[in-house]
Amino acid sequence: MRIGKVIGNVWATRKEDGLQGIRLLVIQPVDTKGNSIRTEFVAADRLGAGVGDHVLVTSGGSSRYIDKDNPIPIDAVIIGIIDSTEVKRGETDESSDRND
Amino acid sequence: MRIGKVIGNVWATRKEDGLQGIRLLVIQPVDTKGNSIRTEFVAADRLGAGVGDHVLVTSGGSSRYIDKDNPIPIDAVIIGIIDSTEVKRGETDESSDRND
Amino acid sequence: MRIGKVIGNVWATRKEDGLQGIRLLVIQPVDTKGNSIRTEFVAADRLGAGVGDHVLVTSGGSSRYIDKDNPIPIDAVIIGIIDSTEVKRGETDESSDRND
Amino acid sequence: MRIGKVIGNVWATRKEDGLQGIRLLVIQPVDTKGNSIRTEFVAADRLGAGVGDHVLVTSGGSSRYIDKDNPIPIDAVIIGIIDSTEVKRGETDESSDRND
Amino acid sequence: MRIGKVIGNVWATRKEDGLQGIRLLVIQPVDTKGNSIRTEFVAADRLGAGVGDHVLVTSGGSSRYIDKDNPIPIDAVIIGIIDSTEVKRGETDESSDRND
Repeated sequence: MRIGKVIGNVWATRKEDGLQGIRLLVIQPVDTKGNSIRTEFVAADRLGAGVGDHVLVTSGGSSRYIDKDNPIPIDAVIIGIIDSTEVKRGETDESSDRND
Repeated sequence: MRIGKVIGNVWATRKEDGLQGIRLLVIQPVDTKGNSIRTEFVAADRLGAGVGDHVLVTSGGSSRYIDKDNPIPIDAVIIGIIDSTEVKRGETDESSDRND
Repeated sequence: MRIGKVIGNVWATRKEDGLQGIRLLVIQPVDTKGNSIRTEFVAADRLGAGVGDHVLVTSGGSSRYIDKDNPIPIDAVIIGIIDSTEVKRGETDESSDRND
Repeated sequence: MRIGKVIGNVWATRKEDGLQGIRLLVIQPVDTKGNSIRTEFVAADRLGAGVGDHVLVTSGGSSRYIDKDNPIPIDAVIIGIIDSTEVKRGETDESSDRND
Repeated sequence: MRIGKVIGNVWATRKEDGLQGIRLLVIQPVDTKGNSIRTEFVAADRLGAGVGDHVLVTSGGSSRYIDKDNPIPIDAVIIGIIDSTEVKRGETDESSDRND
């Protein structure tokens, strides 16, 4: 999964069936230190994430399994809102509380 | 999902079964500001998108689920025609109305 | 889907079941103007594409759905032989007839 | 599959169903010599891998098949904790015991 | 599919169910001329490929379909051992017999 920061919204009236009622958020991928990496993309959200939240995003074919019995044509979905991360590189500890 | 701009069409007479009747559009990926990023690709379309439209494209294995009971061998499909996006980076707001 | 040009063949006697009788072609990815982009790869073919043909290639998990009831372990398949493409960038029209 | 080194943890209270009870680890991809390559990502873990372990990670749609009857929306999972690798390039042998 | 050269082995005692008895080989991706491209990765093998063999590798979600009734969490699998390739670029023919 990738870590990302919610930076915006996308609205689309005409869309494929199955996407009705699902929020579409613009995600800026970040590393564990919060630095922006790569290009923004759009992810579906059912958890109620808001602009500024750090989130965990699943990409690819597994995304559609947020509803097992009803796969929908999406390729990125927010699966968690991150509370905190803890990373150890060599002798250094990096901790961060997100969304406080 | 990726944001893209429809820039053309592809025609193919000889094709795999299941692709009959599906439009094939050339998509230029763009960022939320409308700048071109990466290389163009081809996506299936059932929504009636036209050249110049900004669209939301699902890539990979989920694409085939535009018809759940009848998966077809495609890896990119237009799932929405974008009305507008709103992005907030730091203190700046960027809004854009598409397809006006 | 990606646009590619068929540039060769691969032969393998020892292979996984399910791949018997499927042709394996070397594909050079190209953009809509026919310029080579990225590295060549190998795609399965059931349409009878030949060296020099411009083709449409589906990658990833959807590839195996060329036979819905019999998914096979392939990650790239030719789904169409391109007749022509038409691309509009700004004020310029680019048309091309392929495989003539 | 990719080789990676476990470098940290991610905690998320609000998450999609099906992710309850699954550990989320930060992975630094490495080559067979242990050098860091590319950007860190997050993988699910059911094997009990710890910080410092070298692991084998499956990405993409297959990840969800750690429980065949219960696919979950993840795109990276630790499928093995590496004991050792042996690589032969030209005339040189490179062996390494991991996690000792 | 990608062309690769088998350059080594990976051993893991603790692993996910379903991976028991499957060999894990280190693959160096190569182009049709045999030049190394990109970073090595690990693929499952049931065909008995050995170090030095040129092989055809399927990546992503289709990999798990080497056993249709028993999908396993792998994202790369050797589907063929290459006998030979033939590539035509412009007026030049490139043939190569592999594994002789």
